[in-house]
Amino acid sequence: MAADVYDKVFQVAKRRGFLYPSFEIYGGAAGFYDYGPLGAALKANIEELFREFYVTREGCAEISCPSVTPEEVFIASGHVAQFTDPMVKCSQCGEGFRADHLIEGAGFEGNVDVSDTTAMDTLILEHKVNCLHCGGRLAEVYHQNLMFGTEIGPGTRRKGYLRPETAQGIFIDFPHLYRYFREKLPFGVIQFGRGYRNEISPRQGMIRLREFNMMEAEIFLDPAEGKGHPDFAEVTGRVLPLVPKTTGERTEVRLGDAVKDGVVRNEALAYYMALTYDFLVSVGLDPEKIRFRQHLDTEMAHYANDCWDAEFLSARFGWVECVGIADRSAYDLTSHAKASKENMDALRRYDEPKEVSRTIVFPITKVLGPLFKGKAKAVADALAELDPGTVTPEAAVTVSVDGEHLEVPPEGYEIKTVNEKVAGESFTPHVIEPSYGLDRILYAGLEHAYEEDEAVDEESGEKEVYRRLRLPARVAPIKVGVFPLISKEGLPEYAQTVDRRLRRAGIPTFYDDSGTVGRRYARQDEIGTPFCVTIDFDTLGDGEHKDTVTVRDRDTRRQVRLPVNELAGWVRAKLRLAGKHETVMPAIDA
Amino acid sequence: MAADVYDKVFQVAKRRGFLYPSFEIYGGAAGFYDYGPLGAALKANIEELFREFYVTREGCAEISCPSVTPEEVFIASGHVAQFTDPMVKCSQCGEGFRADHLIEGAGFEGNVDVSDTTAMDTLILEHKVNCLHCGGRLAEVYHQNLMFGTEIGPGTRRKGYLRPETAQGIFIDFPHLYRYFREKLPFGVIQFGRGYRNEISPRQGMIRLREFNMMEAEIFLDPAEGKGHPDFAEVTGRVLPLVPKTTGERTEVRLGDAVKDGVVRNEALAYYMALTYDFLVSVGLDPEKIRFRQHLDTEMAHYANDCWDAEFLSARFGWVECVGIADRSAYDLTSHAKASKENMDALRRYDEPKEVSRTIVFPITKVLGPLFKGKAKAVADALAELDPGTVTPEAAVTVSVDGEHLEVPPEGYEIKTVNEKVAGESFTPHVIEPSYGLDRILYAGLEHAYEEDEAVDEESGEKEVYRRLRLPARVAPIKVGVFPLISKEGLPEYAQTVDRRLRRAGIPTFYDDSGTVGRRYARQDEIGTPFCVTIDFDTLGDGEHKDTVTVRDRDTRRQVRLPVNELAGWVRAKLRLAGKHETVMPAIDA
Repeated sequence: MAADVYDKVFQVAKRRGFLYPSFEIYGGAAGFYDYGPLGAALKANIEELFREFYVTREGCAEISCPSVTPEEVFIASGHVAQFTDPMVKCSQCGEGFRADHLIEGAGFEGNVDVSDTTAMDTLILEHKVNCLHCGGRLAEVYHQNLMFGTEIGPGTRRKGYLRPETAQGIFIDFPHLYRYFREKLPFGVIQFGRGYRNEISPRQGMIRLREFNMMEAEIFLDPAEGKGHPDFAEVTGRVLPLVPKTTGERTEVRLGDAVKDGVVRNEALAYYMALTYDFLVSVGLDPEKIRFRQHLDTEMAHYANDCWDAEFLSARFGWVECVGIADRSAYDLTSHAKASKENMDALRRYDEPKEVSRTIVFPITKVLGPLFKGKAKAVADALAELDPGTVTPEAAVTVSVDGEHLEVPPEGYEIKTVNEKVAGESFTPHVIEPSYGLDRILYAGLEHAYEEDEAVDEESGEKEVYRRLRLPARVAPIKVGVFPLISKEGLPEYAQTVDRRLRRAGIPTFYDDSGTVGRRYARQDEIGTPFCVTIDFDTLGDGEHKDTVTVRDRDTRRQVRLPVNELAGWVRAKLRLAGKHETVMPAIDA
Repeated sequence: MAADVYDKVFQVAKRRGFLYPSFEIYGGAAGFYDYGPLGAALKANIEELFREFYVTREGCAEISCPSVTPEEVFIASGHVAQFTDPMVKCSQCGEGFRADHLIEGAGFEGNVDVSDTTAMDTLILEHKVNCLHCGGRLAEVYHQNLMFGTEIGPGTRRKGYLRPETAQGIFIDFPHLYRYFREKLPFGVIQFGRGYRNEISPRQGMIRLREFNMMEAEIFLDPAEGKGHPDFAEVTGRVLPLVPKTTGERTEVRLGDAVKDGVVRNEALAYYMALTYDFLVSVGLDPEKIRFRQHLDTEMAHYANDCWDAEFLSARFGWVECVGIADRSAYDLTSHAKASKENMDALRRYDEPKEVSRTIVFPITKVLGPLFKGKAKAVADALAELDPGTVTPEAAVTVSVDGEHLEVPPEGYEIKTVNEKVAGESFTPHVIEPSYGLDRILYAGLEHAYEEDEAVDEESGEKEVYRRLRLPARVAPIKVGVFPLISKEGLPEYAQTVDRRLRRAGIPTFYDDSGTVGRRYARQDEIGTPFCVTIDFDTLGDGEHKDTVTVRDRDTRRQVRLPVNELAGWVRAKLRLAGKHETVMPAIDA
């Protein structure tokens, strides 16, 4: 089989230090990858770009929560019950398999309904599927939870899981975050970090990892305000390639119309789809190989009521999800409020406080004092907490104080109606979630950036493959290759000073004085370095090119000559994003 | 009990959004903390500073490996056997305790030898220690492993652990990294990421976490070259506060002398101690509250042969380790080479290749060909791999090919001596490891930066506590507070434009127009914002102060007036590090 682009990308990625299979000296483990020096730099640059989009531009706050999480959180979130894949074990050797994969592998051409274990049992019988390992009979299909389990505190039996998404840490901090944002909606919070999914049998290399890197944003908003976005007007005219669930067909439609026609459920979803598109293009994905596919009702996660996946087209894997933009509605905050009995609501403030009348159980402290002494205050508080509807007027009432039941005589309280000023009404915010799979985005960027030509080796004259990664300058791990034309007569010393100056200015470089300049260009082109600087004799001379260097562009292969003192500024200008993300701002007078 | 500085710092940290107890709505879990918006920004700034020290300046490469790790890795590293704490369970209720903590809590004043379970059993008996929970009799002390366990692949029973340190990922990638660095030593590799330690009963809040953030560097070097550092000469005159294991007393000594006298084992250790000191001071630790304490032989980790802890002085906890700088010698690479049977060596190149003579088993292919047909090549390779010392000359010899045992007759091989060119000799590199505990460093920065005065509230005239965090500008989460003097007459609009320009220039800001300017200063001082900018009527006017703003310094409270167009540049200049970490480079001509 000829190597496809996936193999070619991985061959470069491993040889040059982007990606290494994890634990390779121990035979490896499916579903895990290491980022090597270039990969980790690329990853950090993509994270920085996400910060620029979501923190600098959108004004989100970043938080960071643990990956080990007590079971209660995932019972409430629904993951203990519903974060599953259909699994079937061999009744003979005990080997486990993904039931739907087995059925598909046996030639079944329909859609396997992974929620229906009985249907899968039937399909396994019909297609005479046996254990792939020993040929034995398969037992019944069941839903296997995919969270990595662990124990918090050795020997305590307090169950914990590795988080399957970073989102839950943000949700359970909502009361803190709401205060941080001075109790005003909408606001957004992001989190970077590892997510974990204990796949039954991971396939597809980097695409399906057991431990992966996420970048998630949770935007909390008031559903009564229509789930809009303050900058939605800027994107109404944008045309994105959409695949709505109703037709399953790709359609190019203006976002304003998509929302008006109900194809996209609300403005906030549409806005974050546009933002996501811009982000993916900034990372280097081919705009022609991006689309947004709406989840079918049967594939929607348990928490979502609408979801659009940004997908990229991979030569090997076809369309692959890399971002999910979901309307999680009030699902998460409601679930956690119910399970924790904490208030997870926000306040919708009235323009003016309103006067409302309310019936309450009013404690008579001068009666309670002598009666309950040190506990009188607690008894009064307990009375005030009672629902007046549950109290029989003019009868004794029992309250619970520190687990003790105390009987309060009728004269200890009064049921009365009071008028109160109320600042607003409580409601549970809704959440729009753009959730980015960093590893897949990084892989997509590599695949879409990869190109190869046939070239002729300048020394041997033999044909060889010339590889180039057309990564955007902004995300490329190395920004500048620095070469002395030859390795003598003061050129290396000057080149090293240039190299050091660039690095101290925060620009990652690669100094190389080995082999011909052509070889050195090739080494940098292969890892996506956008610019190469060569120091030659003119640089050192006394002529018009004194203290200038040549800068060669990776993609156009054109060269310009620049004063060495302007080099860092020139490179930095090239690293800025084009268009609306520009860091150059209009003058105040404008 | 009066609140100490720990309580005060935490009160601010929680109220303002630096730190939240994790899973608080579910009652929390000891040993876990969330970074809120300000804490996550502070953490990211500290990480960026670490990159500047170790990547930009020291030239290290960064990599990123999974936290879930197969058991083989930690069997080889020694963690399965030795990453333990002494534990004792109640024979009645089953509750578990740290044995040494129980003994200390019962009034024992000596040093508990945590390696000796029998001695601890005796001490428990002598001090009549019973279960703290039910008073029951305690069972025998045993060593409890502290790694979080899990299972890789659901139902597979392939055991995995959450890594207790990020270092192992770097060690097992050594062969890749050695190639990345073109097979030249020394080189350094860093990794950021979570580490996990399943404490039996965590105490001390942020100090002893079950899930923590690490920043580790592993410097690989050739021990035959004396474990030096190219820049060691720069630090020989530096005086660091050292507490050597021999005396246990603090001594101020020049690093050059410390190495010469054998107090610090080698130059590399001493160099990274100096670098660590500079780093901690840059983060904001009080130079008077930092010391380096050498590990006693009894407390050294199983992998180290010398280790110096950078400790900070905490008002509540006393001296606390926050960085460990260890000489791990060849321990890790040797262990992994042995366990994985992979080559983890480096090559010490000769100046010229040397001719050496070697005895080999030489396969006679013209005999093997007809005899073994398709397997002849494999048989020849297997013969060449044999140790000639194990072969009886002129006898048949058995080789193993794909699990099959094949007998080769005497005429199929020859034992002969050949001369070979050898490029160098193999050796196992040694490792110097500066390992930073990010959470503790961050907490130390907050504690050392915290100060409070008594102030008088300008509105009520009442006394109140005025809190200020003197964080270095470089790590402060918010760099600039932006205030319109009053909330009308165009001031807020102008101020918002200033705010937006700063943010788009990559400078984190906080816009505030609520309450008096004094209140707004107080809000920013409390979170460590170094500069506050006020837009007043002069800014909008036509006089000499048109388009200028006042900038107020947090620590000196002095104000300067600056043109608004110079603001971003002025702030950026203030964010540069002083001294040798300066990003401004000398001119090339110099």
